[in-house]
Amino acid sequence: MGNTFGHVYRVTTWGESHGGGVGAVIDGCPPQIPLAEKDLQPDLDRRRPGQSKIVTPRKEADRCEILSGVFGGKTLGTPISVWVRNQDARPEAYREMETLYRPSHADYTYQAKYGIRNWQGGGRTSARETIGRVLGGSIAKKMFSQLVPRLSVTAFVRQVGSVVARLEADRVEAKEVEANPVRWPDAKEANQLVRLIERVRSEGDSLGGVVECIVRGCPVGLGEPVFDRLEADLAKAVMSLPASKGFEIGSGFAGVRMRGSEHNDEFYMDGKRVRTRTNRSGGVQGGISNGEDIIFRVAFKPVATIAKFQKTVGIQGKNAGLKARGRHDPCVLPRAVPMVEAMTLLVLADHYLRDRAQNDQRRK
Amino acid sequence: MGNTFGHVYRVTTWGESHGGGVGAVIDGCPPQIPLAEKDLQPDLDRRRPGQSKIVTPRKEADRCEILSGVFGGKTLGTPISVWVRNQDARPEAYREMETLYRPSHADYTYQAKYGIRNWQGGGRTSARETIGRVLGGSIAKKMFSQLVPRLSVTAFVRQVGSVVARLEADRVEAKEVEANPVRWPDAKEANQLVRLIERVRSEGDSLGGVVECIVRGCPVGLGEPVFDRLEADLAKAVMSLPASKGFEIGSGFAGVRMRGSEHNDEFYMDGKRVRTRTNRSGGVQGGISNGEDIIFRVAFKPVATIAKFQKTVGIQGKNAGLKARGRHDPCVLPRAVPMVEAMTLLVLADHYLRDRAQNDQRRK
Amino acid sequence: MGNTFGHVYRVTTWGESHGGGVGAVIDGCPPQIPLAEKDLQPDLDRRRPGQSKIVTPRKEADRCEILSGVFGGKTLGTPISVWVRNQDARPEAYREMETLYRPSHADYTYQAKYGIRNWQGGGRTSARETIGRVLGGSIAKKMFSQLVPRLSVTAFVRQVGSVVARLEADRVEAKEVEANPVRWPDAKEANQLVRLIERVRSEGDSLGGVVECIVRGCPVGLGEPVFDRLEADLAKAVMSLPASKGFEIGSGFAGVRMRGSEHNDEFYMDGKRVRTRTNRSGGVQGGISNGEDIIFRVAFKPVATIAKFQKTVGIQGKNAGLKARGRHDPCVLPRAVPMVEAMTLLVLADHYLRDRAQNDQRRK
Amino acid sequence: MGNTFGHVYRVTTWGESHGGGVGAVIDGCPPQIPLAEKDLQPDLDRRRPGQSKIVTPRKEADRCEILSGVFGGKTLGTPISVWVRNQDARPEAYREMETLYRPSHADYTYQAKYGIRNWQGGGRTSARETIGRVLGGSIAKKMFSQLVPRLSVTAFVRQVGSVVARLEADRVEAKEVEANPVRWPDAKEANQLVRLIERVRSEGDSLGGVVECIVRGCPVGLGEPVFDRLEADLAKAVMSLPASKGFEIGSGFAGVRMRGSEHNDEFYMDGKRVRTRTNRSGGVQGGISNGEDIIFRVAFKPVATIAKFQKTVGIQGKNAGLKARGRHDPCVLPRAVPMVEAMTLLVLADHYLRDRAQNDQRRK
Repeated sequence: MGNTFGHVYRVTTWGESHGGGVGAVIDGCPPQIPLAEKDLQPDLDRRRPGQSKIVTPRKEADRCEILSGVFGGKTLGTPISVWVRNQDARPEAYREMETLYRPSHADYTYQAKYGIRNWQGGGRTSARETIGRVLGGSIAKKMFSQLVPRLSVTAFVRQVGSVVARLEADRVEAKEVEANPVRWPDAKEANQLVRLIERVRSEGDSLGGVVECIVRGCPVGLGEPVFDRLEADLAKAVMSLPASKGFEIGSGFAGVRMRGSEHNDEFYMDGKRVRTRTNRSGGVQGGISNGEDIIFRVAFKPVATIAKFQKTVGIQGKNAGLKARGRHDPCVLPRAVPMVEAMTLLVLADHYLRDRAQNDQRRK
Repeated sequence: MGNTFGHVYRVTTWGESHGGGVGAVIDGCPPQIPLAEKDLQPDLDRRRPGQSKIVTPRKEADRCEILSGVFGGKTLGTPISVWVRNQDARPEAYREMETLYRPSHADYTYQAKYGIRNWQGGGRTSARETIGRVLGGSIAKKMFSQLVPRLSVTAFVRQVGSVVARLEADRVEAKEVEANPVRWPDAKEANQLVRLIERVRSEGDSLGGVVECIVRGCPVGLGEPVFDRLEADLAKAVMSLPASKGFEIGSGFAGVRMRGSEHNDEFYMDGKRVRTRTNRSGGVQGGISNGEDIIFRVAFKPVATIAKFQKTVGIQGKNAGLKARGRHDPCVLPRAVPMVEAMTLLVLADHYLRDRAQNDQRRK
Repeated sequence: MGNTFGHVYRVTTWGESHGGGVGAVIDGCPPQIPLAEKDLQPDLDRRRPGQSKIVTPRKEADRCEILSGVFGGKTLGTPISVWVRNQDARPEAYREMETLYRPSHADYTYQAKYGIRNWQGGGRTSARETIGRVLGGSIAKKMFSQLVPRLSVTAFVRQVGSVVARLEADRVEAKEVEANPVRWPDAKEANQLVRLIERVRSEGDSLGGVVECIVRGCPVGLGEPVFDRLEADLAKAVMSLPASKGFEIGSGFAGVRMRGSEHNDEFYMDGKRVRTRTNRSGGVQGGISNGEDIIFRVAFKPVATIAKFQKTVGIQGKNAGLKARGRHDPCVLPRAVPMVEAMTLLVLADHYLRDRAQNDQRRK
Repeated sequence: MGNTFGHVYRVTTWGESHGGGVGAVIDGCPPQIPLAEKDLQPDLDRRRPGQSKIVTPRKEADRCEILSGVFGGKTLGTPISVWVRNQDARPEAYREMETLYRPSHADYTYQAKYGIRNWQGGGRTSARETIGRVLGGSIAKKMFSQLVPRLSVTAFVRQVGSVVARLEADRVEAKEVEANPVRWPDAKEANQLVRLIERVRSEGDSLGGVVECIVRGCPVGLGEPVFDRLEADLAKAVMSLPASKGFEIGSGFAGVRMRGSEHNDEFYMDGKRVRTRTNRSGGVQGGISNGEDIIFRVAFKPVATIAKFQKTVGIQGKNAGLKARGRHDPCVLPRAVPMVEAMTLLVLADHYLRDRAQNDQRRK
């Protein structure tokens, strides 16, 4: 029962890997925002299987259809229902999942919690579920393009396995990231990553990595202490993505080794604007955005589905073994980039509207 | 407006560092749970300033008073209001905060968001705010002692500055942790940490570190995909604590360097119970607890309040400098331990009751 | 942004009269409940236009399709997405609504609030929107058939215009109600109501009335004081239906003329069960169900769309006149019956699961 | 677990009749609103026992104390905690309530739901609980005095027993209402009501009645279809008050006897403002305020506590009899007036801020 995200800008997602389709209902979006399917397709395409040779070959065009909430090309302020039909479903490829628990997957926990599960393609735990998130995020992006045009959200792959990109986040450009299938910040280095991913796949194995995200142009004042701090909601948002294992903002885990005198971000005046010389805070102080770039990282574990034999148990409580069939990604990172962006946009949209509710008068 | 945590077990906190006091209202706690102030005082004492020579010397007895929701020594099922009066307030020590923004504090962002702030002792951004959380967590602990007696939550300091404890989480014992003022897992090593903290304080500087937390005996099945996954809510919970900069569960950031074949947790039958050989998942798979120990880590930045001179700006938009007065911790880690435990208990209590709502029939 | 109902059993509806369709996402439904489209169709058919000669002739088969949340004929515990495609849309019949506000309709308030509206068929304010509610209610009914089989919800038309049915609620039977197109509790009297409705329609006018609802077999203990009392949530639920103007439970407005000594419901023991001799409380005391029949009434105003000429104003702020075209009901009451039942079921399902969350242990 | 009201302007109340006290935490109030205890005391005094000879003589000064959220006389945007200490508690007067269920009270349902209850003075079900609501409402009133100064909320007693006041709501003035202890709209008629109430009390009996409420100056556009329509949330708000049995808005139950052509409110231009000639809608159309006066009525049953002997049963399941002791109101109506106003203000404040969140841009 945890399928709704947000307080004012609210996204409810639904759908399993195999079934009628997947989609989302977005409630709370301001009215009069220009919106059409073509605004949503680009991010869907970035998330889509089969987009390059290093991701899963499942064939899904992932064409979305807006069913409500838009009229004459603009949002109505009523709920926006949008969905994508499932097409290339191959339930037979998952037949053994009916009785066996895949290691480090959700098969066992879903069975234990609900006493039933859709074992075809992982059901609700499939990455296909994230389509609804991406749809909600793209609509949020459209909203910001009207209300806060300077705001941008750019995620990229910071690390694959043990290979770490060196470029500083504030020098990363979306165009460069999208120019290579890995979504590596430096396109010139991307080929070596492609080769790494292909080699690991050919070994029947998989890779993990880190996605980094930078939000530029975020208004000062977003975040609702004490529980709904901006970084807390960002952490929740990305930690709700499949395969994520860690979150850090600004200096993160490395910052704990510093002294306060090294770590503190000194303030200075940049014209009429309060700025910080450094940005170890990662754009958030006391749970509220301070106008600097928001920068955070998300760890994704190596994909659990591998083509090697593994020991496991079955739903009858007997020890067994299995070797994955079905189509899957050797490395989830390239496709995780638009997912991280989408979750970030959901958080920002909700906090932008929440702040407007309580603090609107300050801006007048 | 983000001062309530939880969906069924709901905690609303209130209070500033300087003012009438701080407290919490807990709604949704099951009835008939034995409860008295003496059940809440131990964790308050663990959070309290002045508890040892390495924390802030502010003198607060932090005696709590239960105002409602308990009758004849048991919970009524109605809201439990509990609070602690502020006593040793020294607003004059913060006079310069009225006009200056402390670096890496929330002074600027609160002023920008609300156009007003209680500058005395940091107001709502003071660690004193966490009293309400600890109260809510202690009541959750009492609830579990009745409903899931085997469940325990133990946090400890894994790292201070660059010093990392070596003991594996599953070997850490609460008694050992509480036997030393640092809350270090190996009490024999604690003295060197005390000396480090004292030295850094004498230099007018501060330290960061990492708190680790282990949940033993968690029932299988807690967590509500897709957004309210257990690890997502744990991440949000601890990332809403002051000074936290990162969260990781199970293998976390280090796990991304592994291959899937190394990282996967193979299942096996332990009598009638499904277990995993390794626990890189950290006790959660697909957003739902699997019955293994839940293990996660939280990074805390070095305390922002330091006794050294720093450059900053004032509310009039002029560059300035300041050197902190007031009382503060040189290292927040020892006092962060009960805070992390409290937030963990809030998440578990809420998810335990939420799961009971939807899935109760499976247990009959 | 108010398109979600419920805390644990949560229904989010979407859709406009003219557009892709209308539907609902139901989150929080317990798993393993048998469910198929055929379980939902009967209530949809009771709500459907064109079901009899006294309702609107719009031709909609209203065939629903379940897109997610069901596998192998049972609920999964994941969100259930279900929808109905719009078919017989005739936007041209509403062309003048583009620029004119229909009296006592929502045209003006939607335009004023959002600055935009879907004027075709009333858009989101169309009774067509209630399809999502009926879908959610039918699923709740199916859930109760498994978990609380003795519970039943029966609504009927108590009053049309000035004609009031005399039968006591506790003698009303669903079969009798469904045996006539008015949904009048005494089928023998129904013909006179049919004639009344037809006469008023032929005059280009419309009628209002009262729907009454009786819940039999409700478990003791549902309702969450102090704000989410059972009668408060029932009131909200039915007052959110289009055209509703009043709600009363038990003795209601008439009861205010009685003295306390006349009005109080004395308790007595019926075997081991605590019962009340009278039921002026309407089955709810202190906001919590007491096990007696829950009985309440809902007032519906005469349908605002009439074929007579009326004065009004246009979106350009000029006085004007209009005479409705389009298809509409002369009396909403027969179709309001399944809507009231659906909203009642949503409230009961949510409160049943909420009570289970907090108070489950009492039943063991 | 239903002790929080509102989505953005959120009020959480706590407290039992006998115990430490009663209070509320208000979250989401905009910052920089002037606020002090003296702003809250007038409404508390209007709700207070002992305020006149026709209400309960329990002696409670009901002095409130603001514990947080205010600094330098202005709101901070952080949670406002405010409470009233219980003083004149006389638990011994309720000793027999420990084992007996008072007819038409919540004793039985609380015992059945929670398995425990605070029987002293009715515990959480006491009208004393409404102090928290009145506090929240008074703060909302203060907020509107700053942000929407033209808005006013005036409730009054429309009916006591069978005596109905004739004055039209739009001619009622708050000053006149407050000039008599009954809160009757025509002070000249109040004496006869006082005598009626005194006579019924002397007979050991009690009276019911109707409170009417008029909101003047409400902005156009408040209300969130489809579930959180303004009238739906108003209905819920007042139906959550103790002893309420019915709600109607505008033409209400009487309106169902009209034809659509009589009932519809025709629009006209009043300068640049869209107005309606009549106001059978009661100020709300399609769930959204239209700028006309919002007018609704609430039925309150005769007080359940009477001094006459009544049959009942006890917690041991045996038939028994009782005659109320303790102090109580013979007629709740005069004190219900500020409660209805408070709940109305909570709804309006929440909807005002919610509308601002989604639709703020329209006003610029």
